[in-house]
Amino acid sequence: MSQTAETTATAASLLARYQAVRLASKHLCSPLSPEDMMVQSSSEASPVKWHLAHTSWFFETFVLREFAAGYQPFHPDFHWLFNSYYNSLGEMPEKKLRASFSRPPLDSILAYRTHVDAAMASLLQHPLEDEAARRIALGLEHEQQHQELIATDIKHALFTNPLHPPYLESPAKQKLDVIAPPLDWIDFAGGITEIGFKLDPTDPIQSVSAFAFDNETPRHPVYLAPYRLATRLVTCADYLAFIDQNGYNRPELWLSEGWTTNRAENWQAPLYWRRDEETNSGWSIYTMHGFRSLDDLSETPVCHLSFFEADAFARWVGHRLPTEFEWEHAVSQLGLQRKEINSQPALLTYQPDPAQSLAAIPAIQANLLETGNLHPTPASALPGLQQIFGDVWEWTASGYTGYPGYKPLPGALGEYNGKFMSSQVILRGGSCVTPATHIRATYRNFFSPATRWQFSGLRLAQDATK
Amino acid sequence: MSQTAETTATAASLLARYQAVRLASKHLCSPLSPEDMMVQSSSEASPVKWHLAHTSWFFETFVLREFAAGYQPFHPDFHWLFNSYYNSLGEMPEKKLRASFSRPPLDSILAYRTHVDAAMASLLQHPLEDEAARRIALGLEHEQQHQELIATDIKHALFTNPLHPPYLESPAKQKLDVIAPPLDWIDFAGGITEIGFKLDPTDPIQSVSAFAFDNETPRHPVYLAPYRLATRLVTCADYLAFIDQNGYNRPELWLSEGWTTNRAENWQAPLYWRRDEETNSGWSIYTMHGFRSLDDLSETPVCHLSFFEADAFARWVGHRLPTEFEWEHAVSQLGLQRKEINSQPALLTYQPDPAQSLAAIPAIQANLLETGNLHPTPASALPGLQQIFGDVWEWTASGYTGYPGYKPLPGALGEYNGKFMSSQVILRGGSCVTPATHIRATYRNFFSPATRWQFSGLRLAQDATK
Amino acid sequence: MSQTAETTATAASLLARYQAVRLASKHLCSPLSPEDMMVQSSSEASPVKWHLAHTSWFFETFVLREFAAGYQPFHPDFHWLFNSYYNSLGEMPEKKLRASFSRPPLDSILAYRTHVDAAMASLLQHPLEDEAARRIALGLEHEQQHQELIATDIKHALFTNPLHPPYLESPAKQKLDVIAPPLDWIDFAGGITEIGFKLDPTDPIQSVSAFAFDNETPRHPVYLAPYRLATRLVTCADYLAFIDQNGYNRPELWLSEGWTTNRAENWQAPLYWRRDEETNSGWSIYTMHGFRSLDDLSETPVCHLSFFEADAFARWVGHRLPTEFEWEHAVSQLGLQRKEINSQPALLTYQPDPAQSLAAIPAIQANLLETGNLHPTPASALPGLQQIFGDVWEWTASGYTGYPGYKPLPGALGEYNGKFMSSQVILRGGSCVTPATHIRATYRNFFSPATRWQFSGLRLAQDATK
Amino acid sequence: MSQTAETTATAASLLARYQAVRLASKHLCSPLSPEDMMVQSSSEASPVKWHLAHTSWFFETFVLREFAAGYQPFHPDFHWLFNSYYNSLGEMPEKKLRASFSRPPLDSILAYRTHVDAAMASLLQHPLEDEAARRIALGLEHEQQHQELIATDIKHALFTNPLHPPYLESPAKQKLDVIAPPLDWIDFAGGITEIGFKLDPTDPIQSVSAFAFDNETPRHPVYLAPYRLATRLVTCADYLAFIDQNGYNRPELWLSEGWTTNRAENWQAPLYWRRDEETNSGWSIYTMHGFRSLDDLSETPVCHLSFFEADAFARWVGHRLPTEFEWEHAVSQLGLQRKEINSQPALLTYQPDPAQSLAAIPAIQANLLETGNLHPTPASALPGLQQIFGDVWEWTASGYTGYPGYKPLPGALGEYNGKFMSSQVILRGGSCVTPATHIRATYRNFFSPATRWQFSGLRLAQDATK
Repeated sequence: MSQTAETTATAASLLARYQAVRLASKHLCSPLSPEDMMVQSSSEASPVKWHLAHTSWFFETFVLREFAAGYQPFHPDFHWLFNSYYNSLGEMPEKKLRASFSRPPLDSILAYRTHVDAAMASLLQHPLEDEAARRIALGLEHEQQHQELIATDIKHALFTNPLHPPYLESPAKQKLDVIAPPLDWIDFAGGITEIGFKLDPTDPIQSVSAFAFDNETPRHPVYLAPYRLATRLVTCADYLAFIDQNGYNRPELWLSEGWTTNRAENWQAPLYWRRDEETNSGWSIYTMHGFRSLDDLSETPVCHLSFFEADAFARWVGHRLPTEFEWEHAVSQLGLQRKEINSQPALLTYQPDPAQSLAAIPAIQANLLETGNLHPTPASALPGLQQIFGDVWEWTASGYTGYPGYKPLPGALGEYNGKFMSSQVILRGGSCVTPATHIRATYRNFFSPATRWQFSGLRLAQDATK
Repeated sequence: MSQTAETTATAASLLARYQAVRLASKHLCSPLSPEDMMVQSSSEASPVKWHLAHTSWFFETFVLREFAAGYQPFHPDFHWLFNSYYNSLGEMPEKKLRASFSRPPLDSILAYRTHVDAAMASLLQHPLEDEAARRIALGLEHEQQHQELIATDIKHALFTNPLHPPYLESPAKQKLDVIAPPLDWIDFAGGITEIGFKLDPTDPIQSVSAFAFDNETPRHPVYLAPYRLATRLVTCADYLAFIDQNGYNRPELWLSEGWTTNRAENWQAPLYWRRDEETNSGWSIYTMHGFRSLDDLSETPVCHLSFFEADAFARWVGHRLPTEFEWEHAVSQLGLQRKEINSQPALLTYQPDPAQSLAAIPAIQANLLETGNLHPTPASALPGLQQIFGDVWEWTASGYTGYPGYKPLPGALGEYNGKFMSSQVILRGGSCVTPATHIRATYRNFFSPATRWQFSGLRLAQDATK
Repeated sequence: MSQTAETTATAASLLARYQAVRLASKHLCSPLSPEDMMVQSSSEASPVKWHLAHTSWFFETFVLREFAAGYQPFHPDFHWLFNSYYNSLGEMPEKKLRASFSRPPLDSILAYRTHVDAAMASLLQHPLEDEAARRIALGLEHEQQHQELIATDIKHALFTNPLHPPYLESPAKQKLDVIAPPLDWIDFAGGITEIGFKLDPTDPIQSVSAFAFDNETPRHPVYLAPYRLATRLVTCADYLAFIDQNGYNRPELWLSEGWTTNRAENWQAPLYWRRDEETNSGWSIYTMHGFRSLDDLSETPVCHLSFFEADAFARWVGHRLPTEFEWEHAVSQLGLQRKEINSQPALLTYQPDPAQSLAAIPAIQANLLETGNLHPTPASALPGLQQIFGDVWEWTASGYTGYPGYKPLPGALGEYNGKFMSSQVILRGGSCVTPATHIRATYRNFFSPATRWQFSGLRLAQDATK
Repeated sequence: MSQTAETTATAASLLARYQAVRLASKHLCSPLSPEDMMVQSSSEASPVKWHLAHTSWFFETFVLREFAAGYQPFHPDFHWLFNSYYNSLGEMPEKKLRASFSRPPLDSILAYRTHVDAAMASLLQHPLEDEAARRIALGLEHEQQHQELIATDIKHALFTNPLHPPYLESPAKQKLDVIAPPLDWIDFAGGITEIGFKLDPTDPIQSVSAFAFDNETPRHPVYLAPYRLATRLVTCADYLAFIDQNGYNRPELWLSEGWTTNRAENWQAPLYWRRDEETNSGWSIYTMHGFRSLDDLSETPVCHLSFFEADAFARWVGHRLPTEFEWEHAVSQLGLQRKEINSQPALLTYQPDPAQSLAAIPAIQANLLETGNLHPTPASALPGLQQIFGDVWEWTASGYTGYPGYKPLPGALGEYNGKFMSSQVILRGGSCVTPATHIRATYRNFFSPATRWQFSGLRLAQDATK
């Protein structure tokens, strides 16, 4: 195939992915009113409307303005209005002002999306420069990150509303009769291992599997001591024992910074838990389907934990959090499979037991955004590592720093990841609101250790003897 | 006329007023989208949607629940959801959460208003208990206060929007060719004078003129030394001289608390003023019609001043602010006339010169909400006290305390005014967004001395020799 | 007597007063170590060492630099270092930095005092200009104000120390066997009355009685409705009933700003009260002699109340606070007597019952600083107004504003009082740490309504029928 | 040698070290008055007096109370009063209250030290349990850490004083005529290397060299890519170029959290730098000897940098910070020598060039506390790695986490290091106020990335090709 033909194929393939991803964003908003999409209920969150605009801004700024000859920007003010944090591009509004963006109205934002989509479709009719292809691929991953934020931000917004309306009415709230299997361990021998994504710099990112963020590179050797990982995530039932045994009020279990936060915020349970005397457990939990009794969710993974809570729980139970390298080393041995149809968002499966041949046990389907659960679900009784992808982001013991030889992208896009490399902690594996085409074994998410509004939980680890 | 007939007449009259006032609230919202009505841009302000709900809540809570037999509340949660600050009625949401009220949606709020209006219309078909009539009259004044807040809050919300959209597009922005007359003085002899509203406790408040808030009573004697009042308000041109002569940076001109606020907030001009090199004066001012050059507004009264700025200006120019008693004493001598048609909002006029017979000079029409200016306008060259009602609230030198013998209303309504009697300063006279039927000579408005988001300005005063 | 002889007499008289006042400041510090005198335990307070320096700075700045020919300032840096808040004199260190003034050491501060005292003694050997005499009189009142602050600030500092050491060891802590008399009322007819100090501008302030602050002037007419004042202050026992009946947790009793403060600060009792299960009452109170059981102090006036607490108590008990005019009007009818020996600090007595001839009942000696009690004491059973001077500052219902025609002193001294005339409340009567020569019927003290570290309490008032 | 004899020797050796270390603390305080020792000028710092008490508390709590039969604590309140942050031992006063500790007076604190010293001398007359020996060794290292804090805290306290007195008068302030050599690089091949201190758990810590903190263990393999380290620290002259080229105002050079801090704190230079128009460079720097012109200090290492500033400088100059593993790997190849006399604080030397035989070039003497410089000094022109130990703590690129298999000490001492393992950054090498017997190649210091009051600077690193 000639070079041009190949690139045209890339363009067509990218267009299909582009349209699928953009559609998914709008689909997420279908239960919401324009008023819902105005709410900014915490300093971490943004209004949904802003997410819809900003993701379009990304394509306009980094692709269309540079690569689409004759492109007419939709509105002259949008260039600075919907900038998030790219200082290199000039001034931007303060984040807290996003709640004042009643204008432009949602209709204009949707028109903006249509305008950008049309220009992108036009651009993708023709062969692309490699750099344009790379930026489009980045823009799609960027939009998927904001899909996850749309889910987490609207959950917080609706919870903050004194009426606590659900994002979606639940068809049924009966108790799941699944019981999470007992916690078990899988051993890994460690040694010198390769960590990080192996970039092919000549690949213009034709497929989902060819993409990684700059912070996942370069691939490099790391030495690991022998270790074990828990077969499943920590459940609400596991975590309730920590609460009931006064875990939130015992300073010896907490990092100093965590204890200070705990006292200042008066934490006594994960975010979204509420005392409820009408339940057996004494708690209800706010979900995307409204409040549900903890009695019905006890076997599901605990989520909306800060790093400090995850770390305190691990200390209380006598274990620890895995490092991000241990996690990646273990997970890279599982046979990740993506079921994609025409590059459209689809399901992701993996082989839970690295010690077994791939065919020996059935593959597990990850509980990611496309399952529609919008909440973590219980582990199955299969052997091997359960709940690796999806369900909840897993806090690791690793701070967020650049890999040896790390280089940010050139120009303003260099601000995408690199400038956040201080005082953040790595999370791995994606959650129940992460798009299936967005996650992979080398993916590094990161948040401040006090963050709780993400679907974040934990998997235990321990040292193994050689 | 028999007692019943009289009360029925009251009911009919109240219904007409009720409908007029309620309509005016909706009219104010006509330029706004549901998204606009969600914005809460400062801790002082509330979303417009909330104002529409809360004013209906007031009638439901204090009138319909108590006096309308068989009344069905619109929604069980609204009773606490739209409580503003009445602790006696139980818990309420934190004020800052009002921006999260995407639900109930605007449609529900409007349906709530319709529901309450129907019940009120039904109630007002029949003779009323006096206490019900008094509460309805209070509810209408309450709604008018919130009309003013709708105007001031949406002005702040739209200004906060980085695009600074106008509330209304202005048909024309040409310079007014009116020149404010030179500042002159009118003398008042003082002595023992009666201050406050003379309540007729047997009057069930049949007319606008029969109503006053509890804090305007009881009428009581006050001794006043001889004094003078300026014939007009301080203009933007007057105030620009203070700015140009470094008034914002000279601590000797400021109260200590004002200086601290000035430094902390980095004040260099009134709220809504912005440096603009394209104007002669160097400033533009945001109005309800968007930004306008100060060049075009220099003869209009300066507004959006804090008490601290008003006080510093007065000191700089060698005069002082009037006390609220001086103001009321002077104004009560002007022949206030209301032009009402069936008790509907209408125009208010007064005779500017207390020394002249009422017929000698033409009456002045006050620049209140119904003029549609939505901004203060220049004084005319007529003799006497100009700009007394409307234009801007006039900061006085008086702290807000209860009059001798002051008694709050019984029950929860006692929280209406009395509990704010500390650290607040009195303002008099109404502004360009005050409804005409809402203002009177004895009316006492009050805000914290650092407040600037109201249409607030000043009139100078000085001592007179006996 | 010739003009010069008279002024020389003034100078000699002033020198005696000067030496007495300055000695009293040092006497107050005698129980303190240099380390104690470094502590600044709240943003309201200053280190004792700073007070000693600043009061000397006042004489150096306003008297010696202007009126003492050839005066050599003690240290060039002290001029700005010990400026408190006089913006007209240039920059000054931030107040919170005063705790860092380990240098100059206490020895230098004491040497500074000696240097200033010597220069003052020299100046006062000769006839004085009137303005110099007025400034010295002001400086002495200023120093007495700081004596009171030394007492209140060191009380707070020692209380803040985790060991809670007393200022003075108490010789005995037995229960006082005095019982406060029942609360009774005295009626006052009101009418037009003169309020404020009558200045004699030709008097160079030869005696304590000739002095008043600018904010006590001009004397002016005020109309008062008939009123009653309680014969004694509210006691700890009275106030305990308010606590026990949940007064701190009933929002309807509190001003809105007070309720916000109450919740933010988690108030459940006056400052310096501590739960103590070993006492009958359940409380202990920190005094200048250390913690004492409330059982022993129940008949003493409650103190260290904010205005908000005083106001809430008055509302709870069905009465109100007096206005400052009511207070002054009543008190000016009592026969105030000062026992001075060579103008030195001495005792102050007054006739408690304005309705009685002066000789009919024994005069009361006020519990001021010189009694050495350093804590309020119970009222006696005599008829008339008890505890008028001394014991505790009495919160009034009056905000702090300038009297009609008020003019601040010229120059930097104009900042002494005038610039604080916003958001402050008037207190009257002095406390148990106010010097006896410092207080008078027209004296206006003022603090922010949330202030509690002063010895502040309340006397009840009510309206009287004509 | 028998077991007992050996342990007795340990005891005698520990006593000599104990006395030397304790004497050094008092020596540091010799220029200070009791008032100086009261100042707490920032939330990071403590009063010097508190340090003297707390270090004694450490021996009393962890050694004497547990191992000295019949020990009588000096004062019952001191057990909680001088606890710093050991939650396991019960409540403690808030850190900010330490400035209120005028009582106990300095005399009592010194008596407390004498009391503890006598008990320790008595305890060390006899053979010791191993655990007691380990705790004493820990207590001595703890006291040395507080010696460094005494120096940094009093520097900040005296700088905060508006008069900026020096800690010590400088005998002479002439310009050093040393010129720092040009920046050069030394290559390291990397590979698998052992990191951390090799504990001998059977050694009861007889010598300085046998001690390490728990966070330096366990020794473990780490893989390193080839890298280079700069031969010397970054100088003030180097750093001035960054300032002059607007480095503080270019967001692209800063981590996001660093930029936010930079703007919030209005940073334009390192801590202790002040604009000074009388110098050529335009800056003066506050040192332990008072302000000195930057002209005289330009060749000295820049210090009092936050991690954010160090990182921004490195990015600006095109290099990076070393990881803590790179630093330790390089430094462990230098021939560290301690000159100790009877275990007393003495000098530390090392061989700068790892590639040379030890005898080829002269050893370098580290600029640590005992040199008396109290400020970093210029690098010499010798080959190899200069300024490795002493001068300034070197910020690394590594977050502070536990080494694989890390176990905190048992009991309350487990709070010593482990609970701070979040949001902190590692520094290596010691500073000019670190005691010589306290530092080693494996030593891990850690502070929040915004910290500037320590003597902290940087050494550049870069990747090397294989």
